Parts: sequence; C-alpha cells; structure tokens
Amino acid sequence: MSDLRIAVLGVGIMGADHVARLTSRISGARVTVVNDYLTEKADALAATIPGCRSISDPLDAIADPDVDAVVLATPGPTHEKQLLACIENDKPVLCEKPLTTDVATSLEVVKREAEHHRRLIQVGFMRRFDREYAQLKALLDGGELGRALVLHCAHRNPAVPQSFDSAMVVRDSLVHEVDVTRFLFDEEIASIQIITPSANPGAPEGLADPQIAIMRTVSGRHVDVELFVTTGVAYEVRTEVVAEKGSAMIGLDVNVIRKTAAGTWGGQITPGFRERFGQAYDTEFQRWVDAVASGFNVDGPGAWDGYAASAVCEAGVASLNGGGPVEVAMVARDSIPGA
Amino acid sequence: MSDLRIAVLGVGIMGADHVARLTSRISGARVTVVNDYLTEKADALAATIPGCRSISDPLDAIADPDVDAVVLATPGPTHEKQLLACIENDKPVLCEKPLTTDVATSLEVVKREAEHHRRLIQVGFMRRFDREYAQLKALLDGGELGRALVLHCAHRNPAVPQSFDSAMVVRDSLVHEVDVTRFLFDEEIASIQIITPSANPGAPEGLADPQIAIMRTVSGRHVDVELFVTTGVAYEVRTEVVAEKGSAMIGLDVNVIRKTAAGTWGGQITPGFRERFGQAYDTEFQRWVDAVASGFNVDGPGAWDGYAASAVCEAGVASLNGGGPVEVAMVARDSIPGA
Amino acid sequence: MSDLRIAVLGVGIMGADHVARLTSRISGARVTVVNDYLTEKADALAATIPGCRSISDPLDAIADPDVDAVVLATPGPTHEKQLLACIENDKPVLCEKPLTTDVATSLEVVKREAEHHRRLIQVGFMRRFDREYAQLKALLDGGELGRALVLHCAHRNPAVPQSFDSAMVVRDSLVHEVDVTRFLFDEEIASIQIITPSANPGAPEGLADPQIAIMRTVSGRHVDVELFVTTGVAYEVRTEVVAEKGSAMIGLDVNVIRKTAAGTWGGQITPGFRERFGQAYDTEFQRWVDAVASGFNVDGPGAWDGYAASAVCEAGVASLNGGGPVEVAMVARDSIPGA
Amino acid sequence: MSDLRIAVLGVGIMGADHVARLTSRISGARVTVVNDYLTEKADALAATIPGCRSISDPLDAIADPDVDAVVLATPGPTHEKQLLACIENDKPVLCEKPLTTDVATSLEVVKREAEHHRRLIQVGFMRRFDREYAQLKALLDGGELGRALVLHCAHRNPAVPQSFDSAMVVRDSLVHEVDVTRFLFDEEIASIQIITPSANPGAPEGLADPQIAIMRTVSGRHVDVELFVTTGVAYEVRTEVVAEKGSAMIGLDVNVIRKTAAGTWGGQITPGFRERFGQAYDTEFQRWVDAVASGFNVDGPGAWDGYAASAVCEAGVASLNGGGPVEVAMVARDSIPGA
Repeated sequence: MSDLRIAVLGVGIMGADHVARLTSRISGARVTVVNDYLTEKADALAATIPGCRSISDPLDAIADPDVDAVVLATPGPTHEKQLLACIENDKPVLCEKPLTTDVATSLEVVKREAEHHRRLIQVGFMRRFDREYAQLKALLDGGELGRALVLHCAHRNPAVPQSFDSAMVVRDSLVHEVDVTRFLFDEEIASIQIITPSANPGAPEGLADPQIAIMRTVSGRHVDVELFVTTGVAYEVRTEVVAEKGSAMIGLDVNVIRKTAAGTWGGQITPGFRERFGQAYDTEFQRWVDAVASGFNVDGPGAWDGYAASAVCEAGVASLNGGGPVEVAMVARDSIPGA
Repeated sequence: MSDLRIAVLGVGIMGADHVARLTSRISGARVTVVNDYLTEKADALAATIPGCRSISDPLDAIADPDVDAVVLATPGPTHEKQLLACIENDKPVLCEKPLTTDVATSLEVVKREAEHHRRLIQVGFMRRFDREYAQLKALLDGGELGRALVLHCAHRNPAVPQSFDSAMVVRDSLVHEVDVTRFLFDEEIASIQIITPSANPGAPEGLADPQIAIMRTVSGRHVDVELFVTTGVAYEVRTEVVAEKGSAMIGLDVNVIRKTAAGTWGGQITPGFRERFGQAYDTEFQRWVDAVASGFNVDGPGAWDGYAASAVCEAGVASLNGGGPVEVAMVARDSIPGA
Repeated sequence: MSDLRIAVLGVGIMGADHVARLTSRISGARVTVVNDYLTEKADALAATIPGCRSISDPLDAIADPDVDAVVLATPGPTHEKQLLACIENDKPVLCEKPLTTDVATSLEVVKREAEHHRRLIQVGFMRRFDREYAQLKALLDGGELGRALVLHCAHRNPAVPQSFDSAMVVRDSLVHEVDVTRFLFDEEIASIQIITPSANPGAPEGLADPQIAIMRTVSGRHVDVELFVTTGVAYEVRTEVVAEKGSAMIGLDVNVIRKTAAGTWGGQITPGFRERFGQAYDTEFQRWVDAVASGFNVDGPGAWDGYAASAVCEAGVASLNGGGPVEVAMVARDSIPGA
Repeated sequence: MSDLRIAVLGVGIMGADHVARLTSRISGARVTVVNDYLTEKADALAATIPGCRSISDPLDAIADPDVDAVVLATPGPTHEKQLLACIENDKPVLCEKPLTTDVATSLEVVKREAEHHRRLIQVGFMRRFDREYAQLKALLDGGELGRALVLHCAHRNPAVPQSFDSAMVVRDSLVHEVDVTRFLFDEEIASIQIITPSANPGAPEGLADPQIAIMRTVSGRHVDVELFVTTGVAYEVRTEVVAEKGSAMIGLDVNVIRKTAAGTWGGQITPGFRERFGQAYDTEFQRWVDAVASGFNVDGPGAWDGYAASAVCEAGVASLNGGGPVEVAMVARDSIPGA
C-alpha cells in the first residue's frame, strides 16, 4: 500500500518533467531521491518536494536503501555504468533513450541483464504508450488490414539547438521511428540508407536537413522516414501503414477547428513533444510504476529493444557519412539466453 | 445537330456569368440574343459574341424567331410577365430564383403552365446539381441511412451590400435551404419560425443577422438553418442530415491542406458562391440544354418548386416580423391538374 | 504530504469508476471509505482496496474521522441530505450532477453553503476539464474570434435503457449542454423551448427522440441542441461556436484514419462517454484533489452552477410537456450573499 | 464562330471517353472523324454522332480536310508515326501519354516539331488541369511556402489487369508523378531508383507491387513515390510538398461524411481515375480547344515534357531491373533550338 520510492537521476528538462509527473500525476509513487551532476540544481529541486533528498553521486543514489526503483534521465554516455549499477542493486530502472551510446555497450547491458535472470530495464520509447500508436498497433494485430507492407513516417521539429548535428538527426529523432517500426512490424530492421537532399536554406550551416531514411526489414518490408528538424512550423509526427487490405494513418492532430476572417479553416498543430506525447509519458510512467509495484518490473520495451535501436542508428550514421545502404549488424537474439 | 439558340434576359453579374457559361463551357448551345433594361450594357456584351444581337424589349427577345429557349436573370419583379410570355411563345425557360416575388403570382404561373399542357419552366435552384448535394440525395434515396429525421444547415456569407435587409436574408438566402429541404425530404414544409438572436456587432444597423430558421415538414421532420450573412469569413454552406441509421454531412470544403509557420494546419474556404457552386451551375446548364434539345424542356425543379419556395419564404418573412411560428399556406398540388 | 482520504458514496457504474480512478490514476488521494445502499456491493469493493472500509450509512461515512473529502455518486434524490451533511461536517464534496433533483432544493443547498462562509461543493460537470472544451473556452476568452453569437450542439447516444423517458433526455443529457453554454458564454440562460419532431422509428414507444432544444441567453444569444439518444451509431458530442469574427468547432473525434477494401476512408467514433470523456474525469479529479489538498476545495463549477442547470432543465421539461418557449425562473445571484 | 473539327484516333475506353467529352461537354468543338484499328468499332461510334465519319487509315484521318485538330488515344507504339503526320499536316494534336514508347523516338518527335517552327503537340498529362494540383502549383509559385524541398506521392489502384507487369507500373503509373514532379518543381529529374519491397500477397505472380520510386532532381531535391496497384481499396492519389516555410497536401478526397451504425465516420474514396480526374480531363480539353481555336495550339505540357517523362521512366525501368539508382540520360534542352 505504501508508495514506490523512486530516484530520478538527471533533472534537466526531461528529468524535471519526470519528477513533476511522478509527484503530481502518477498514483502509487513518490520521488525520494534526486541526483544531477549539477548538485545545486538537484538540491534546489529536492527542497521543493516533501520527503525528497538530493544525493550527489549517481551510484549512491541507485544504491540508497530509500530507493525502490530508478528513472534515468542522465546524459547517454553515463547510462552504461548506471544501468549496470541498477542490475547489481537488483533495482528496476526506466531508462530514457538511448540505452547506451554505442552498439557494443548496449549489447553488454543486454547480456548482463540476461545473466541476472530477472528483467529490470525498460527503455523510454514512450510512443508505444501513445493512444494513437496503441490503436494503430491493435488495428494491425487485429488482422483486419492483413499483412503490413509499407510504412511512411514524417518526423518534423520546428527548430533545433545550434549544436544539433547531422548524426543527431539519426540518433535522437530517427531512433523513435526505428522503435515504431520494430513495434508495429514485430521484426528487426535489416538495412538502412540515409538520403540527404539539398538542404533547407534555413537550416544551420553544416546540418543535413531534411534527411530521408530508407529502411528494409528482415522480411523485406519498406519503411521511409522524412526527418526535418528545422521546419519553422510545429511538432509533427505522422505515421502511415500500408497493408494488404487497406491502410491506416495517425498523426493528423485535429482538435479545435476554426474558421477565421482570413477565409481559412483549420487548427493548431501541437507545438512540441510535451503537448504531443505528454499523455504517452504519463501512461508509460503509471504503467511502469504499477508493473514494478506488482513485481513485473518492465511494461514495454526492454534492453534488447534499446540495443536494436542502437544498432540501426549506428548503421544509419554510417550511411549518412558514406551515402549508400548499410546492413545492420546485430547478434542473433537467441544467442543470448534470457535476452 | 445545330446549337440551341438562347436568349439571356438580364446581363447583370449573374446573367453575364450565364452568358459566359453558355458561350465558353456549355456544349450544344449559343447565345443569340441578350437583353437588359440597361440597353447599352446588353449592346456592349452582344458585340463581343459572334452571332449575338441585343434586343431592347424583353418580350420581343422572348418572341424572336432566332430564339429557341430563354434564360431569365432579370430582377424578380419582372419574372411573372416574362414567364407568361415564354409560355405564350411555347419556349422553354430557365428562370433564376425567385419564380416570382409573391405567392399569388407564383401560383398564377403554376396554373398557366399547367393549362399549357407542356412543361416549360425550370427554376434555378442550382444546388440540386452540385456534386455533394447529389451524392447526399443518392445516399438518402439508397435507404442505407433509413428515414431522414432532422436537417441542420448553415448558410454564411462574408458580407452583403448595405442595401440588404432582414427580409432578404429569408427571400434570397434561406430560399436555397427551403429548396434543399424539399429536395432531400421529398415533402412540403408545414411551418416556419425565424428567431433573431442579438445581432452581430459588425452587421449594418437594422439588419437582423444572424437569423435562425426553424422549419417543420408536413410529416413532422425538423429543419434548422443558421443564416449569417456578415461573418467576415468566406462563403460557407453546410448541410447535415440526421437519419434513423446514421447521419451524413456535406460542405466541409477541403482542398489543399497547408501547414505553415504559424504552427497551424488547414486550408482556404471557398470565397464565394461562384467558386462553391460554379460546377453546379455548369452542370445545371448543360443538362438543361440537353433536356431542351431532346424535347423534355425541364431537368430539375419546376414552377411548383418555385411556388412552394415562395410560400415558405412569405411565411418566413411574416415570422420575422411577428416573431412566432407561422403556418405555410399552400394550395394542394392535386387541385391543379398538370402541376 | 499524506494522501487525501476520500469517501465515495454510491459505487454503481459511475461510483466504481471513480473509485478505480482515485485508486489507480490520481496522485495524492486514496479511498478510505465506500458506501452504497447495496451494502454487500460496498463491502466487496472495500475488500479489494488496501486501507478501505465499507460504512453502511452515508451520513456516517461523511462524518467519519478517517475521511477528508467526499465524492457523491449516489442517486440524485439523496443528494440534498448528503450535501447538507458535508456542509455540516465542513467537508469538501465533489457531487455528480444533478446537484439535487429540483430547483427549490438546489437553491436551498446554494443558500446553506453560502451561510457556511466556505465553499465546499463542486458539481461534476466534467466537460469543463475536457481538453477540447478547455481549448475552445480559451479561444473565446482570448478574444480572437470576437463576441460569441450562436452555439450549435449535438448530443447523440447510440442507445438508452428502456426506462429512459422524454424528461430524462432533458435532465440527464441536455443538462451537460446547459452547463457548456453557461461555461462558454459566461451568462445565464433566459428561456428554453423543446421541439419534438416526428420520432425515430427505432426509439422505444413513448420516448420523444430526437428532441431539439432552443435556448436564449439573457443577452439574447441563441443556442440550439440536437438531442438524439437512440442513434444506433456511437457516442457523439459536437459543439460549434459562431462568433463575430469566425467560428470554432470541437468534437470531430479524429484518431486513426483507415482506408479499407470497402473503398472507404474514415475512423471509429468513440463508443461511449468513458472513452470520450475519460481524460476529462481524470483531470477533474486530479485538479479537485489538488485543490482540496491546498485548501481551496473547489476547482470548477460550484453549487450555483448546479442550481442554474436545475432551473434551466426544469423549464425545459415544462416546455417538453407544454410545447412552447418557457422562461427560466431563477433568483438573482446577488440576492444570496456569498453564492 | 464555327466549331473546331476534331479527329479522334483510337476509340477504346479512353478514346471513347474523349469522344463523349467533345460531343457532350466541350464548347466550340465537334468530332468529325473517328478512327480505330478495329474499323467496325469506329464505324459504330461514328453512326451515333451527327456529322461524324469513320476513316479506317489513321494517316488519312489526320490529313482529312474536314479535320482541324487531332486527339491521339491510340496505342503508344503508333504515336511516333501519327505525331509526325500531324506535324507534316500542320495540325495541332493532343496526344495521350506516352509521347512515344522509347526515348529515342520521343527525342526525334521533339526535334521534328522544333524544326517545324510552330508548336503543335500537347501531351495529355491531365493532372496539371486538376483543380487541386493547379491550386498546389499556385501556392508554390506564390512563394508563401518558400522553396519546395521534398515531394511525397502515393499512387494506388484497387486492381490492374492480369497482363500488367512490373515495368508498366513505372511507365503507366509513375509517369504521372514524373510529370507532376517536373510541373511542381520546374526542373528536370537527375536520377531514379526503384525499390521493390516484399510483394503484396494479393498481387499477381511476378508483379513487383508495391514499388517505391526515389527520385532526385538536378538541384538535389528529393521525391518519393509509393506505387501500389493492387490495393483492393480504391483509386488514391496523394501528393505532399514539404517546403522551406511549411508544407501542403492534396488528395484527401473528402466529400460526403457519413456516420453509420458501425460506429464509424468517414466517406467514400473515389473509385477510379474517371471520377478522380474527370474534371481535369474536361478542363484540359476545353482549354486545348480554346487554345487551338485562338491559334496558340498548345495549352499545357508539350513534346519536351513527353520526352523528359520517357527518359525518366526508361531509367526507372533500368533501375527496376538492376536494383540501384540510375542516372537519367537527357540531351540539353538548349541543344535543340525551338524545343
């Protein structure tokens, strides 16, 4: 009956969102520990939450006896060590993507969890918890549309920080569509090619934007993704599955329809990922908290899904640099008992 | 094989449109005579059309041997005399609404045509030829939705001339929905009430705008119409039928969908009746020309439909002035053999 | 820091939903007491919730020291006594509509709360917490569309129990649009007329369905509502505001768009009020829990709003029986200091 | 003032449509000669049209003094000879795509017309006359969206004849998107790649369906086209331009919106190209007739556009067979004075 005690590591924009989520909207959980490499930031946040302390060392935070489960919102390069610490301490962890920043360490994490003989790691691919993606998945699984054949995706951001580079488009944006593909099609991606058309004049110097990703699954299904992160418009994520007996699309983003003195009809596009996927994050967290409380620990994508996404993105970056199609290199899942 | 020779009476905005339509887009017809009370206007127009003369007297134009059929785009008060002349000359006529400007003269025209024993008069309720209305009618007649129970309409104009008064909202705008109701429901309208809510601050002084018309058909079906002629937006006509086994709506007016830097999605609303109903006018005229050429003379609403619309609008104006529901006074159709 | 302890009175379909909501999705609250006139039902439910007891007398449940606040999901006729008990015990209460079942007792509740000098009563008009209604309200309040002039509403249910009678269409369905009107327009409703067109052949014998409600606000604005509770389709709630400088519509209910072998495009309509307004209930409850915890007690419509809705619906039922427009009889709000 | 006298060569499905179009809907033209390699078919059709003869030799039909202009709806392999005859006879010709069936002969036609010093050839890429494409082109040319960067197209047929093979998907379906790309972007296509995902189980044995075409324009813009000709759904053509300052989409195909007892909302997709592009064909023909009558001869895409489409499709078929990207081989336009 007592609340799940959670440590949130990393309280930047995303981590702070998760702290607010757990504190104000999620039932059955409370944040008892926060941690950040900017210690003062964590201290200040802890002071606003009754019963919450700041712990300056992330591994101490994970090991703290006042912590039942961990949320990782730290920078990617720190994930490997922190995930292994969670495994050592036998604590469930919800890890924001990426699992780790390269394929080798992702695979290492998969193996260590498999050896632990108890699933502890959930990766934060929140789209699986979005109402529309869930409905689309249910529609495909229901069989009404027959076999899915082609997937068209668009992933558009109004703007990105000046530091955003071409490879980040693959690692930070495309990674979501990689997981969506694997989620909807229930199979691995075999190859990927990144096409870089002539760039948006408004994109920062040196940033290849838009990019087009062409993926092929193991069974030969086609996926294309338009990645365009400097549209100047709003946050747009659209997904269309073309199947044997019909097609289905999500992401039309219809709310209030206005007609105005400009002689136009239409509505607002959701401005950012928080507005678009806020419900998905809430659902992801509530279901994860419930799963951990009931002893199942993981409700959604696990370490293997994080590894697979890393492998595809690594191939994508190689294609971006080299230009042609690149095979995705992955070990066979059944080569790791328990993965 | 020779073209139908047509006299167009009245070459104001609407009549000039019809001349252009017959000259440039309608197959099998040509304009041989034009007439207008502004003689110079008709003369100037005739000079631009090979084989076309201007005739200053409308009755002479109707009687001219070089004229096979007549289009009336003259002011309503002149219609009665011109329609009767068409009957006397046994010439088919496509008469822009209204049939005549009052119920008594409309009934007289109905009777005179019935006595003539040959249908000659078609009234220009062009919406019946609009693709969407035709599809809606076919859907209802197909029976899939069961019995139609309720009709919701909206009729919005961006602006009207300063001379537009409250009764004209009924006679010139509502009249279309009166015909649409009779077309879709295949029955007469028994009563009408006009509600005048607090007016749009942007409407001209003295104009009751918006107005809400509440109609009840003979069998008890409900129709409501929002009439709003100073919206400042665009030309909007929307119709929804609610039936026993479902509902259907037309008028969403979707063309190019744009997403722009304002963070919005949507499109243009058609700016005016020409853009919205241009196809309907073209279809109406082509089918009328074909009907006349084949000897059927009338392809669409006839004199009775014009009379019925006059009767409902007259009751509507009475309600506008008096405030409550007003019964529609009409003779029984079978009291006029041949009507 | 400790959770708000809540007694839920009435654990029928709606009350059980609220218990599940408070137990599994709402942060900062837990259900410590349940009550139902079917004692065994309450006992069985309590047994599934850690720390929850069943108390057989509703007034005892309200007075229990283990209860901080109350949720009323009991039948309407019991509300008056239970609300007055909440006031006597100085306990915040979220009362499902109706406030009470007649205008006189609703007014009495308003007066008693006003004399208490502390607001305790929130009425469960959950649509105010629906994302689309909130956006529509914000759009109107933002002034971009100018003054709202007309409101068109449709409220459709696929089916109702055989016991549903014509007055319940007004009291249980229309009541939501009454509150929506008052919420969007920020003024009272002056008169109401219920029109009963020829009935749906599929409606139960004796049920006037559909019904059309015509309302006029104090300042003369027009509202029409189509109420149709045996459509056989799904749960449809649509609201359109026509304003001085444009219009806005909500309720298009677009999710996954499918194209299928029938040669059609489109999607599912939400099947029922839980799917349509589940998010609204969650938001309503979370915000109410937060408000109570912070000492404000009420976050949304209060007792006066419940009284106003009762007054309009009572006039609506009178119109249903008599046929014409009926003035809404309400006391002036400022005649009750503190209301 | 007299009608343009037209010979229609080839009166199969498409040619017969054009005869009906010219006879019943197009102003200022009439069909005086028909021709088909099935002479009896042409004879039978001629007998139904006043003033029309059947001529068994296509070159005689072109040369006939009773013919002012020619419509070619004959099989592609006959086009070269017939187009050259039109040039020799100095007669304007509207030629259904393809211009000719290979790049070399297409180029020869371009050169011969250029040497003739008078433009005579229009190619039947009717989409340029579709209202939505025209609006999209106007939107792009207006500059509001900035430079167009990416084009996404879908081209879906419910079914194709058993004889349809993989190369025909490129030559007969993709060819329209090739022209749309050149029309919207105003530049040539530099390379093309055809991807063949795992095939639709419902596609005929040996037919690669769906196919994905990836094109790159000379300036580096990206185009992708989903070609899927055995969807079992309906006729779907969708086009989305992603530009520097926004995006725009056409082809949503919204008409009557129904809600039915299945609990669904939506509408019919247009079943075939006639319903989808009938208006475009009518507009194309009326404007071509007007252009010829006024001495301009060509109103739309000319021989060069037909040559360019041939060149891209030939490269597409090479990619289909070979698998990788293929450069498009075209002569420079300015190497042919007058082209």
